[in-house]
Amino acid sequence: MLSIIPIREIPLVKPGDDLSGLLLDALTANEMTLQDGDILVLAQKIVSKAENRFFNLGEVIPSERALDLAAKTEKDPRMVELVLRESSEVLRFRPGTVIVEHRLGFICANAGIDHSNVDGPYGNPEDWVLLLPENPEQSANAIRERIAAVTRVSLGVMIIDSHGRAWRTGTVGVAIGLAGLPGLVDLRGHEDMFGFRLRITQVAAADELAAAASLVMGQADERVPAVLVRGFPYALREGSLQELLRPKNLDLFR
Amino acid sequence: MLSIIPIREIPLVKPGDDLSGLLLDALTANEMTLQDGDILVLAQKIVSKAENRFFNLGEVIPSERALDLAAKTEKDPRMVELVLRESSEVLRFRPGTVIVEHRLGFICANAGIDHSNVDGPYGNPEDWVLLLPENPEQSANAIRERIAAVTRVSLGVMIIDSHGRAWRTGTVGVAIGLAGLPGLVDLRGHEDMFGFRLRITQVAAADELAAAASLVMGQADERVPAVLVRGFPYALREGSLQELLRPKNLDLFR
Repeated sequence: MLSIIPIREIPLVKPGDDLSGLLLDALTANEMTLQDGDILVLAQKIVSKAENRFFNLGEVIPSERALDLAAKTEKDPRMVELVLRESSEVLRFRPGTVIVEHRLGFICANAGIDHSNVDGPYGNPEDWVLLLPENPEQSANAIRERIAAVTRVSLGVMIIDSHGRAWRTGTVGVAIGLAGLPGLVDLRGHEDMFGFRLRITQVAAADELAAAASLVMGQADERVPAVLVRGFPYALREGSLQELLRPKNLDLFR
Repeated sequence: MLSIIPIREIPLVKPGDDLSGLLLDALTANEMTLQDGDILVLAQKIVSKAENRFFNLGEVIPSERALDLAAKTEKDPRMVELVLRESSEVLRFRPGTVIVEHRLGFICANAGIDHSNVDGPYGNPEDWVLLLPENPEQSANAIRERIAAVTRVSLGVMIIDSHGRAWRTGTVGVAIGLAGLPGLVDLRGHEDMFGFRLRITQVAAADELAAAASLVMGQADERVPAVLVRGFPYALREGSLQELLRPKNLDLFR
């Protein structure tokens, strides 16, 4: 059985907060004891806040390129400037949306910059946006090491965001950084019980778990920015976001 | 808490089998009692088998178009013929893969036709392939009605497959037919606790659940073609695959 358990009682996270400490406190408050093989899944937002990835739009001076793209997309040029700074390539755009390759390697809308739910450190809240963590995988690894040291448990930690998709509507949770769990699980070479090679050879296990976790975090008014996963069906190992990124030259939809 | 519970003890499904009956028997064998709000998630394969969606490649005569595409993709022309028959449009192809719009409306590789794990009704197993259910949503609705009538429980039923994705490697579970649960959950107009409108307005809840279920079904040798979901965080309602399909004219990646 796979259980996705909401971790409640996490306070609002502020820049400089010790996120691992907040998580450990919340686990205690929820009377949850970590076990070997558990995975903690964290919403990107609390990691970004703890790392003070806030930007004040009032301090952003848009480039010519940003002004041009902002006109074409009917977006705030300062926001577009930040999107471009956070991206390595613009794939597509239309009014309201810019689809980019984020500097971290994945494809997403608006470079994952959040303008909806940002209580900035000071001043007019409408001026503040929140960028993705500088290096989510490094963040996940640091949190994992800290929590493992305190609890003496072998666990995985994953940071997720919600992404739109080609072809299908709505957003789904996806991994943007992982520590101590596989991104892909390779079933190539396995035979099914009839002796045939399996058609589906590589499962994006971390992304499937990210979607499951996102479902439980789901409704923002419930304030569940982290979940505990018990019963992940594959062996934990060192893993990386890189496993989940399709090389550009092998992508039919770039 | 969201629980994804494997339903074991489902026998190998054969054409003409009463799948609802097999599921009810397996629930009993697992000592599982359905509750209002539960969702049963079924792998496409058992639905297709029960509905005898087997095709014998030996009986397929490829068209000119199939022969041409087979040469370009280095695939079996008879298989390509079936892919074309099951599709409304070819989006992309390369050796080994044809990406199509399936006649059911979603985008997937090789029209979802399975050649890996097919124990056909008779003869050389290598000749048999398995197509997707004729109408998965109708199948889901029929199973839901039957199980609701027997158990007097209000439940959802979803049929899933594993799809590859643009930009990211590996497959994830996605909905291909749903009955009694939402495809999308619309959070537009909701405000978060700071009074801002939410950036993420529509969550592909059924697909997030499909990914979670797929994770538990995962390893083919475990033979778990169905799972019971308890604790789905959104209200059940009549829903449809159509909610999850992005209209072609709004898709930047067609």
